[in-house]
Amino acid sequence: MHDAVQSSVVLRTRRLRLETQQEPIVLLHADCPIARSVGFTARAQVELVAGGRSALATMYQVSDGLIGEHEVGLSEDVWSHLDVPDGTPVNLRHPLPVASMSAVRAKVYGHRLDDDQIRSIIRDVATERYSDVELATFITAFSSHQADFGEMVTLTRAMVEVGEGLTWPGRQIVDKHCVGGLPANRTSPLLVAIAAAAGLTIPKTSSRAITSPAGTADTMETMAPVNLDIAAMRKVVEREGGCVVWGSNVGLSPADDIIIRVERAVGLDSSAQLVASVLSKKLAAGSTHVLIDLPVGPTAKVRSPQDASQLSEFLTLVGKEVGLDVRPIVTDGSQPVGNGIGPALEAHDVLAVLRCENSAPADLRTRALLLAGELLELGGAAEQGAGQTLAASILDDGRALRKFLAICAAQGGFREPPVAPLRHDLVAPEAGRLASIDNRLLAKLAKLAGAPAAASAGVRIHVKLGDEISRGQPLLTVHAETPGELAYALEFAAANARILQLTEA
Amino acid sequence: MHDAVQSSVVLRTRRLRLETQQEPIVLLHADCPIARSVGFTARAQVELVAGGRSALATMYQVSDGLIGEHEVGLSEDVWSHLDVPDGTPVNLRHPLPVASMSAVRAKVYGHRLDDDQIRSIIRDVATERYSDVELATFITAFSSHQADFGEMVTLTRAMVEVGEGLTWPGRQIVDKHCVGGLPANRTSPLLVAIAAAAGLTIPKTSSRAITSPAGTADTMETMAPVNLDIAAMRKVVEREGGCVVWGSNVGLSPADDIIIRVERAVGLDSSAQLVASVLSKKLAAGSTHVLIDLPVGPTAKVRSPQDASQLSEFLTLVGKEVGLDVRPIVTDGSQPVGNGIGPALEAHDVLAVLRCENSAPADLRTRALLLAGELLELGGAAEQGAGQTLAASILDDGRALRKFLAICAAQGGFREPPVAPLRHDLVAPEAGRLASIDNRLLAKLAKLAGAPAAASAGVRIHVKLGDEISRGQPLLTVHAETPGELAYALEFAAANARILQLTEA
Repeated sequence: MHDAVQSSVVLRTRRLRLETQQEPIVLLHADCPIARSVGFTARAQVELVAGGRSALATMYQVSDGLIGEHEVGLSEDVWSHLDVPDGTPVNLRHPLPVASMSAVRAKVYGHRLDDDQIRSIIRDVATERYSDVELATFITAFSSHQADFGEMVTLTRAMVEVGEGLTWPGRQIVDKHCVGGLPANRTSPLLVAIAAAAGLTIPKTSSRAITSPAGTADTMETMAPVNLDIAAMRKVVEREGGCVVWGSNVGLSPADDIIIRVERAVGLDSSAQLVASVLSKKLAAGSTHVLIDLPVGPTAKVRSPQDASQLSEFLTLVGKEVGLDVRPIVTDGSQPVGNGIGPALEAHDVLAVLRCENSAPADLRTRALLLAGELLELGGAAEQGAGQTLAASILDDGRALRKFLAICAAQGGFREPPVAPLRHDLVAPEAGRLASIDNRLLAKLAKLAGAPAAASAGVRIHVKLGDEISRGQPLLTVHAETPGELAYALEFAAANARILQLTEA
Repeated sequence: MHDAVQSSVVLRTRRLRLETQQEPIVLLHADCPIARSVGFTARAQVELVAGGRSALATMYQVSDGLIGEHEVGLSEDVWSHLDVPDGTPVNLRHPLPVASMSAVRAKVYGHRLDDDQIRSIIRDVATERYSDVELATFITAFSSHQADFGEMVTLTRAMVEVGEGLTWPGRQIVDKHCVGGLPANRTSPLLVAIAAAAGLTIPKTSSRAITSPAGTADTMETMAPVNLDIAAMRKVVEREGGCVVWGSNVGLSPADDIIIRVERAVGLDSSAQLVASVLSKKLAAGSTHVLIDLPVGPTAKVRSPQDASQLSEFLTLVGKEVGLDVRPIVTDGSQPVGNGIGPALEAHDVLAVLRCENSAPADLRTRALLLAGELLELGGAAEQGAGQTLAASILDDGRALRKFLAICAAQGGFREPPVAPLRHDLVAPEAGRLASIDNRLLAKLAKLAGAPAAASAGVRIHVKLGDEISRGQPLLTVHAETPGELAYALEFAAANARILQLTEA
């Protein structure tokens, strides 16, 4: 009887070229007979079935000529899920309720979740059965009631299970992660080059910016392609020992990508989720030894040594349980590391360090050598205490640069990062000593200048905490690709003197 | 500088007639120069300013010809907020972050919220500054960490403060609320008629169905207009002593309407939110004495006597603190009250009781007299213990019917509810005794048949728990307005034998 009803009125697909950032949306005509017969109203969740494929979406209704009465308009996300040409007949039906939401509600009410409950939630998240408000409920529940050790372990494993997995020959596969919140600090490409040059295997996946001016993947992309699939990533690592690719494209932890987007939107990030997010990606990448950089500072993500210490403990213990040797390292997060903030600006810093140029930011070089030393020791390429010296020699004799260029070539070819056509210096209005840097405002300034969509846009910072500044001295240079973005950023800078605060000289 | 940038490219409004159920959406062309210059990407929250008005919306991008590069397409919600004709120049900007979300996050982490924090949240919710995921976070936080007494009181008061308020002459203004979850149970129109006929003032606002087959407002609308504004509602009550109008249209508790929609979507409903929701609407309506019906049953909203008892205590104590005399009454919620489920079907039951017809459902009459008796006593129209007798005499001598028709006339005119053109009996496959009724499946069946959008659609139930049933006896009759809806409902009924369960005779 179902089929008889459904086939009496058939809707045909129409790609709307509607970009919604992974939010599946379909548009129906308000008088669409099938919507009426099935009892759909605007904002309903619907399931579309065409050929053998199905997709969930939020349905809205249009009453003018945008959509015909027998059409269903598809957002890009729905269109790519169904993967059918325009005009394909499609059935609409009520989606089944997401069964695992009952487990989420149990967590809301303070109950511990067992393995099956956590696995069912993550499976439904990864297959995009959760709406955004359901995701927000899941995230809030785990922020309201801290997961215990066992829940964190299960969460980590469940996130690995729903993604692709990689394995490598050899016993020690190293990796690195930074908990973030600090602009620039682009040490990853340097670490990958040094570690791979030292003979280690380091299959590094990185993220793109979500709320920051640049992710490592955005920076890397100004120098080489990063949208590699899992097979291409494998080839690069097999050939060169390391890579720097965009993680979401590889599909190592699809649930995590979905969760992170909503976490950012509501400003929550539970320890459990952070631990599971970081470790699941490393596990899925086939890593065995992971260095985790935890920058601590008043405007970084981790704000106090106590928080860093607790997070370190979670990462280490959960890591051990799932088979990862985790080494957390707490670093100074009070100011940017490197001078450039924005994809290409950060890439220029990375290349300057690799090329041992005089203009290379000393703090980025120092930070990279510190972390690379730890990584070489962790991976067994250097004795305890000898890692930094080895890292410095690999950098200084050009092996790191050659390895980096070889990795870029393997990923599809090296290119020099672009330079922004528009630049404007912001100078010190008075003399003084640089007392504080607000990393969040600085990131915002770089974003308003166009980063990361405009790859060459962003901010270059010319001063460090404690510097004595003279009146009129350039503090920041805003880089932009369009006059509008430049003006917008400068207006923001003028209204936000707190970005850099000077005390009287 | 801001103005100079903004005015360089002006977007013009275009009403899309896009129905999104209060979700504000705007569409821009993917190449829209202003979006690029301001750094907007798809799914960003944007603020539109046109003339002196502004509106928040989620922005999506379209890359084909639906929207011009210099246009901004408005969903109906945004269009009605801005209230400007097509082609009006509009500025887009980044909305300020919602400051009160920091208070929500404090609640997530288990902190008690003070009065200012709760007030700021509810103000931002009422002015539609919260996105859906932020609303879900707020709701989940209050479900994860039960509000204390003081928080409930503040939440209730805050919800009153952001809405319209009514006051009435006289000291005792009565009202009634049902915590719901039981199909049919349409006692409100009967109570209003009886109480107003007894000389009491009862300014009743009701809701429309959100997830149920009919709200009281939907049922009432099949007999009289219910979309009255606050001034019209006042006139009806001043003239007749009572009314039954749609609450959201009156605007007594705008924050509540917004919160409830997301609560339903995620399946959460905290006690605090329920208490604040119910009491704030009664306070705003100017009521002083409120009867609250709490049907308890395994498939009703309140599932156990313990839950009912705790909720009663919250309602009574918070009510007292905000100046409401609340009388909770726990009733049987194991099966529907009345025979019809669906707007017009329930209206027919109500009219049959008012008209004292032989076919009138006895259980609906009994339930209405029980509640009306309590209400008359609560409002001082009857001595303790004499309420039900007075209520019965008002019903039996036709005063209730005359009052009801007068109220309908005052609201815009009485009409007979419609009758569905298509009806289909579902009969007992075997003989037996009716052992259980799943209220939720029954409601779903009525919705699939078309209720509440199709006013005459729904289900009529012919049996009660414990009835001896013979083979082939009609159990339910499905009413529908279209063949598609009828077939869809029958298919569901065939697949869900659990709706009514018989034991062997």
